[in-house]
Amino acid sequence: MTTKIGIIGDGHVGCTIAHELIVSGLVNDLVMIDVNEGKVQADAVDFEDAMANLPHHVNIMVNDYAALQDAQIVISTLGKITLEGKGDRFEELEYNKKQLRPITDSIKQSGFNGILLVISNPVDAITNLYQQLTNLPKKHVLGTGTLLDTARMKKVVSQQFHVDPRSVSGFALGEHGNSQFIAWSTVKVLEQPLTELAQSHGLKLQDLEDQVVRGGATVFLGKHYTNYGVSAAAVRIVRAIVSDSRTEMPVSSYQEKYGTYMSYPVIVGRDGIVARVELALTSNEEQLLEKSATTIKEKSQA
Amino acid sequence: MTTKIGIIGDGHVGCTIAHELIVSGLVNDLVMIDVNEGKVQADAVDFEDAMANLPHHVNIMVNDYAALQDAQIVISTLGKITLEGKGDRFEELEYNKKQLRPITDSIKQSGFNGILLVISNPVDAITNLYQQLTNLPKKHVLGTGTLLDTARMKKVVSQQFHVDPRSVSGFALGEHGNSQFIAWSTVKVLEQPLTELAQSHGLKLQDLEDQVVRGGATVFLGKHYTNYGVSAAAVRIVRAIVSDSRTEMPVSSYQEKYGTYMSYPVIVGRDGIVARVELALTSNEEQLLEKSATTIKEKSQA
Amino acid sequence: MTTKIGIIGDGHVGCTIAHELIVSGLVNDLVMIDVNEGKVQADAVDFEDAMANLPHHVNIMVNDYAALQDAQIVISTLGKITLEGKGDRFEELEYNKKQLRPITDSIKQSGFNGILLVISNPVDAITNLYQQLTNLPKKHVLGTGTLLDTARMKKVVSQQFHVDPRSVSGFALGEHGNSQFIAWSTVKVLEQPLTELAQSHGLKLQDLEDQVVRGGATVFLGKHYTNYGVSAAAVRIVRAIVSDSRTEMPVSSYQEKYGTYMSYPVIVGRDGIVARVELALTSNEEQLLEKSATTIKEKSQA
Amino acid sequence: MTTKIGIIGDGHVGCTIAHELIVSGLVNDLVMIDVNEGKVQADAVDFEDAMANLPHHVNIMVNDYAALQDAQIVISTLGKITLEGKGDRFEELEYNKKQLRPITDSIKQSGFNGILLVISNPVDAITNLYQQLTNLPKKHVLGTGTLLDTARMKKVVSQQFHVDPRSVSGFALGEHGNSQFIAWSTVKVLEQPLTELAQSHGLKLQDLEDQVVRGGATVFLGKHYTNYGVSAAAVRIVRAIVSDSRTEMPVSSYQEKYGTYMSYPVIVGRDGIVARVELALTSNEEQLLEKSATTIKEKSQA
Repeated sequence: MTTKIGIIGDGHVGCTIAHELIVSGLVNDLVMIDVNEGKVQADAVDFEDAMANLPHHVNIMVNDYAALQDAQIVISTLGKITLEGKGDRFEELEYNKKQLRPITDSIKQSGFNGILLVISNPVDAITNLYQQLTNLPKKHVLGTGTLLDTARMKKVVSQQFHVDPRSVSGFALGEHGNSQFIAWSTVKVLEQPLTELAQSHGLKLQDLEDQVVRGGATVFLGKHYTNYGVSAAAVRIVRAIVSDSRTEMPVSSYQEKYGTYMSYPVIVGRDGIVARVELALTSNEEQLLEKSATTIKEKSQA
Repeated sequence: MTTKIGIIGDGHVGCTIAHELIVSGLVNDLVMIDVNEGKVQADAVDFEDAMANLPHHVNIMVNDYAALQDAQIVISTLGKITLEGKGDRFEELEYNKKQLRPITDSIKQSGFNGILLVISNPVDAITNLYQQLTNLPKKHVLGTGTLLDTARMKKVVSQQFHVDPRSVSGFALGEHGNSQFIAWSTVKVLEQPLTELAQSHGLKLQDLEDQVVRGGATVFLGKHYTNYGVSAAAVRIVRAIVSDSRTEMPVSSYQEKYGTYMSYPVIVGRDGIVARVELALTSNEEQLLEKSATTIKEKSQA
Repeated sequence: MTTKIGIIGDGHVGCTIAHELIVSGLVNDLVMIDVNEGKVQADAVDFEDAMANLPHHVNIMVNDYAALQDAQIVISTLGKITLEGKGDRFEELEYNKKQLRPITDSIKQSGFNGILLVISNPVDAITNLYQQLTNLPKKHVLGTGTLLDTARMKKVVSQQFHVDPRSVSGFALGEHGNSQFIAWSTVKVLEQPLTELAQSHGLKLQDLEDQVVRGGATVFLGKHYTNYGVSAAAVRIVRAIVSDSRTEMPVSSYQEKYGTYMSYPVIVGRDGIVARVELALTSNEEQLLEKSATTIKEKSQA
Repeated sequence: MTTKIGIIGDGHVGCTIAHELIVSGLVNDLVMIDVNEGKVQADAVDFEDAMANLPHHVNIMVNDYAALQDAQIVISTLGKITLEGKGDRFEELEYNKKQLRPITDSIKQSGFNGILLVISNPVDAITNLYQQLTNLPKKHVLGTGTLLDTARMKKVVSQQFHVDPRSVSGFALGEHGNSQFIAWSTVKVLEQPLTELAQSHGLKLQDLEDQVVRGGATVFLGKHYTNYGVSAAAVRIVRAIVSDSRTEMPVSSYQEKYGTYMSYPVIVGRDGIVARVELALTSNEEQLLEKSATTIKEKSQA
């Protein structure tokens, strides 16, 4: 009946998603969980101090795993961004891995039977672990993956051609990490393939990719974390699940063919990943995707 | 035509308000200003990375004072929360005062002619300074003041009586600071005066006030700043101004009788403070209000 | 999990509520029911034709009583406004009464176990019948009642004093019909009792009541039905139920003391009428309330 | 500053758009205009009766052309749907043409200098007339055109493939009327051209087109007008203009090449039609478009 959502991890990303869900009126019952009791209590009280002035009412529960039992979605945002010193999200793997066992035990114990949305990095590896540890159906466990990177690509293309980023189509694929790539063959704007437009406009695709990377660097150097872009990506996935809209999005989902979680467009609805999409990639893109899958699998073993 | 809003200061509060305005679809053009160029550019890019996944589009401008010329509202959130070591917002006065001159010069130079909403602390003193330095009409300069403290009081009462905080009426008055007080004679819930309910339920008003204070302490100790509660207060004021709703709210407004900015209920609309409300306070409350006004004036001189 | 709402009756009010719920993103699954199969299918298709251009997705089911099984709220809007020739909502009683038996049988058969919100007129009598026929707990059956009339009073007072109608407090009580009355002793604006303000401003309360009535007449004469005001009232109740906000509102609720459904302020949350409010009415107002209760009971027997 | 929108014509479509704008919080000042003074006053009062229960405040002005002076957008919904007896929107031409002269005179007299959005049918012919009579720049005058028909096509495709209609791309082009056509070469779902999917799934495009037509017939036969689908289309255009999102949409816009207003994808922003899109249509589609243009021009002369 009620839209109940749990957020595990109340760092930069967790509380920003909580804020976005509360302000949008998308959630009725919100369970916030963090090992830093002081921080999560502080955010909960701060949200409650907002209620008298907000158009939407939300009930907030803190550090109550049992309350996840009838949650529709649990979002994992745990992580330690300071570990990413060398610019590889896999630097967080060991740390986050250790957190997972007690968390997934508590989730299982709660009887939670909904959709698990993972943002924790390295997201493809962690999503994989969440699925194995919770034993939830593969289609009920997914990661934000390259939905953020896709948005960044759309932003750069939109700025180049002066159009709404929502009017750009196409995907960043593979690992949400260093082996990812923009599948330029899928990108269209102004109803034309970007590869053709690039030629006619004397643009180099590499320059556009560099702009995407520079954007990420601007954010990371400027504040040492990112939160708004990934929060919007997560909330869009939440909307698709709650409303059962069956929206096409690139998210980290189990890719049978590659034997790993990895981002590829799928259809997202109330039952999680409800259908698969088939891209007609170039052979070069196919190779990049394969390579990205291998990277994820190898680094996950390490 | 377009709803254009400027935010000066991109700290914890500034970017949270930006996020809330963007996610709510309340703003079309947003001007973000901060002396920390890296941080404000980071947040701007991060917001732009959100656009492809958001239902609302917003145009973001960074560190462009000239763009404030046709803004409807400018919100000042600058401050240095780490200065508040001894728990008095006046500890930020000297620091913030120094920032004000160049900022108000730039605002004036832009030709800005809208409503100035101040959150910077000590808010009553700083609002006063903003008004003097910009020479904008007094009714066009206001501070969030005790709208946040009022929300905190409503939260505590609502928790006690198990009702929506929006179904509690009444006000915290005076300085948004240590000399403020809850005007219990104005507080009602379940259509009964709280003072009577307290008696019949064996509640001490002091205990309720302590809970309010404890809530603030939980937030401050837990994360060393507050942002969500004050952001919701600011955004509610923004809604009232943009929609010209003429809503009654306690905000820091120039109180002729006391010769200072201070929180007292007023009617807020597109023309700023459009009307005054007269409370029938007890004589004790009148004295507390007088004392709070004196405190603000004395500390502002210091 | 999902917010599922059923609307029985797809006339002027039913489809307007459906529109408001869809546009607000408040509903995920919507069950629309009407004996006029052509009309309800037309509205459903028309809403589906909107989906590609809306920010929110909604799943629509038509004339499927079984789908109400796990609905959180069912809203009854059935009625025949053309029967109200002499300006008494009780003129619809016989007609609507006849519709109720098969409808409530179908609702019961569906296994529906949520909150029943009644708008059908005469609302107090029909709400009573719904409760008896469905045998749902009294607190789970309520009517919009004088929430609309209260909004009309607030509008008139707000126009008189140039403030937001949401900044006016107070209630219209009793029958949502000819025996209702504005409990002026409960009305406040600008933090002053309206009765005092009226005196100091040389206003007659009767003139304000006349304005309320004239407003209703303008609507009825101008379009022969009302829909937007009552839709907003219903949707506000829906928000309170779905978010469990425990908001105080005057709605038609079972009044033990008077032995009938009738409007009086109560606390509305996920469990329906979750608490009662006690007004300190004048003895004249108490008499009017008693008389209104008697009117409802007598006319319901007729 | 403020988002002010005018709606001319308060029939089924006009008041539904008003309702959608009010409920969405997209408009602050709304000017409603209709020759049927009783109806438009009734709707205005009904909306005002909603304000106390709505999260957004809106100021409503009635039949005040002068108030359009600083409106950002004026939406024309005037028309007489009962004239469309033979199923051709051009049956409304003579009647609507006659209304235009005094209306456009009043619009010009107001000093209105914003964007004119036309829904009145036959929309391409009427948009053309509005542009000529107001002498506003061609890019500032546009019609909803086939944005609605495109949504209907997306709905049918989405139902066939069980995906979000917003995840279907492609366009219905030409006249918003009998000579329009779905440019199937532009339609994609699940990242595959619909023409290919149709083959592999044994679908006939004609059957899909028939479903679109049948949907329209269901609406028209069931209630004798349409309002929700076209309202959502209009409001989406409003969002693009107000937020300057530069969104790609098929709308009735002046097509230099064809010498007439007609629907074709364009980029819509604050300055109206801010850029053109070039489709790579099949030669058959090119001919259909040419033919549709000719139809509009010939019938407009009649």
